[in-house]
Order: sequence, then structure tokens, then C-alpha cells
Amino acid sequence: MDQRLSFVTLATPDLDATRAFYATGLGWQPLIDVPGEVIFFQAAPGLVLGFFEATSFNRDMGLDGAASLSGVTLAHNVDSEDAVRATVAVMEAAGGTVSTPPQPGDFGGIFHAHVTDPNGVIWEVAHNPGWSVAEDGTVRFG
Amino acid sequence: MDQRLSFVTLATPDLDATRAFYATGLGWQPLIDVPGEVIFFQAAPGLVLGFFEATSFNRDMGLDGAASLSGVTLAHNVDSEDAVRATVAVMEAAGGTVSTPPQPGDFGGIFHAHVTDPNGVIWEVAHNPGWSVAEDGTVRFG
Repeated sequence: MDQRLSFVTLATPDLDATRAFYATGLGWQPLIDVPGEVIFFQAAPGLVLGFFEATSFNRDMGLDGAASLSGVTLAHNVDSEDAVRATVAVMEAAGGTVSTPPQPGDFGGIFHAHVTDPNGVIWEVAHNPGWSVAEDGTVRFG
Repeated sequence: MDQRLSFVTLATPDLDATRAFYATGLGWQPLIDVPGEVIFFQAAPGLVLGFFEATSFNRDMGLDGAASLSGVTLAHNVDSEDAVRATVAVMEAAGGTVSTPPQPGDFGGIFHAHVTDPNGVIWEVAHNPGWSVAEDGTVRFG
């Protein structure tokens, strides 16, 4: 099995709030947008981040009710501490809630913040001086 | 904010089982492996899939106890129905549990299966004839 992820799909109770945050607020371009069902955004080469209406999510898994999301975080790495601050400001203006304001992390020289989207999806926005992505997409930790 | 995901991190109670499944069983190469804390695997260009010990996950979020994972699925797309069957066999041999055997999906000509890893992480393995990834990593649905 190749070491490759094609989709990350998150159960989401309010797709209108998702659209307002990612598409309208952040300017992300949906790959597919089916109101009341799913919204997909490409989020890395070959990788799609999907938001799937929480009741449909459970139905697809053969379960009743609405799925709730827990135990997952997403991260967005940027090139500088100023870019962390600027990104957090953009996310807050789009309707995100800042739970950890931009600040140094506990180790490794990281500088980061946590912002929650309108459905409770936790994003870490981070500058990690030891992190780099090569031309071919290879990730390195320094 | 760029339309870009750098990490997907999942709370995981048993990192030894995670290592046995992904590294030993599937042959994935860890980017970082800190026993009892985290294991990271690169899973797309510029994108890392992280498994974070569930108690540490909650502590980082300022919560007590161990985080549990719900409301998220991962997907691995392959080029043919036979590749779905072969991938599912490899995942099962590595210790995964098949909850949906390889079969046609409800729409779009998709052929897929669901396999759960030893910590309950749900993977869809799918062949979708309308899905393609261009040379530059752009995803297209036909």
C-alpha cells in the first residue's frame, strides 16, 4: 500500500457555516460543493479535505444520528512568526475563534496559535524553523 | 490564507499498534517516531499524517483524560478495482479489520471498501473512475 492519503473527510453539522468560513472568508476554491451534503477543497497535491454533513456521514457508516468530530487537529505551517499572526487575523475575520493566541510553543522553537472553525474543527497555525518542504514535496524536520 | 494543509493529527490510544500496522505491516517509512508520544508519516507532497498519543493530545488542548477519535475518515484512492482488492488484502494482513468488503458504491461508478486500523481509524480504499490527479498534483473529478 503506497504511503498516500487521497481524502481527509470530517463530519460537519453546518455546511453553510463551513462554506462561509473557507470559501467566502478565506477565499478557498471548492472542488465540489453540494449544499447540505459535502464540500471538498484541494489541500495538498493529490489531497482533498472534505466536509461531510454529519447525519449523512453516520448514515454512510451504517449508524443513526449525527457524527460528532473529536480527536483530530489540522495544521497549516507558514514561513514566519508574522505570517502566523497574519493568518490568525484572517481566520478570525472569517469567523474563526482563537483559542491559543500566537505565542511560542513548548519546544523546538515553534511559534503557533490555535483557531477553531465555526464547526469546531481545530487548526494549528505554526511557524516551525526546523520544518521545510523540498521542491518535490518531501517534508523535512531540521 | 493559502489553501494548504500541512498536518492531519489523530488521537491514538496505542502507538505500538499504530507502528505495527503502518510501519511494519504496510511498510510506511516514519518521518519521526517517538515511542509513547507521536509517529509521523508523510502522506502527500508537503502533508504529514500524525498519530499522537491520546492522553498527550488532550493535555496539549488543556483537557484531562484521553481524546477519542470520531467523525473523521481517511481515503486512499487506487487505479483499479483489482488494486482495491489487493490493498484491502494487504491492510487486513497488517492487522486491519474489514468492515465493508470491496464492492460497488452507491453512485458515480465508485468501487470501494472500508478497513479500520487497530486504533479504529477508518480508511476507505476506493477506485473512482472519475478521479484523477494531474502531474502538478491537481485533483479532478470527471
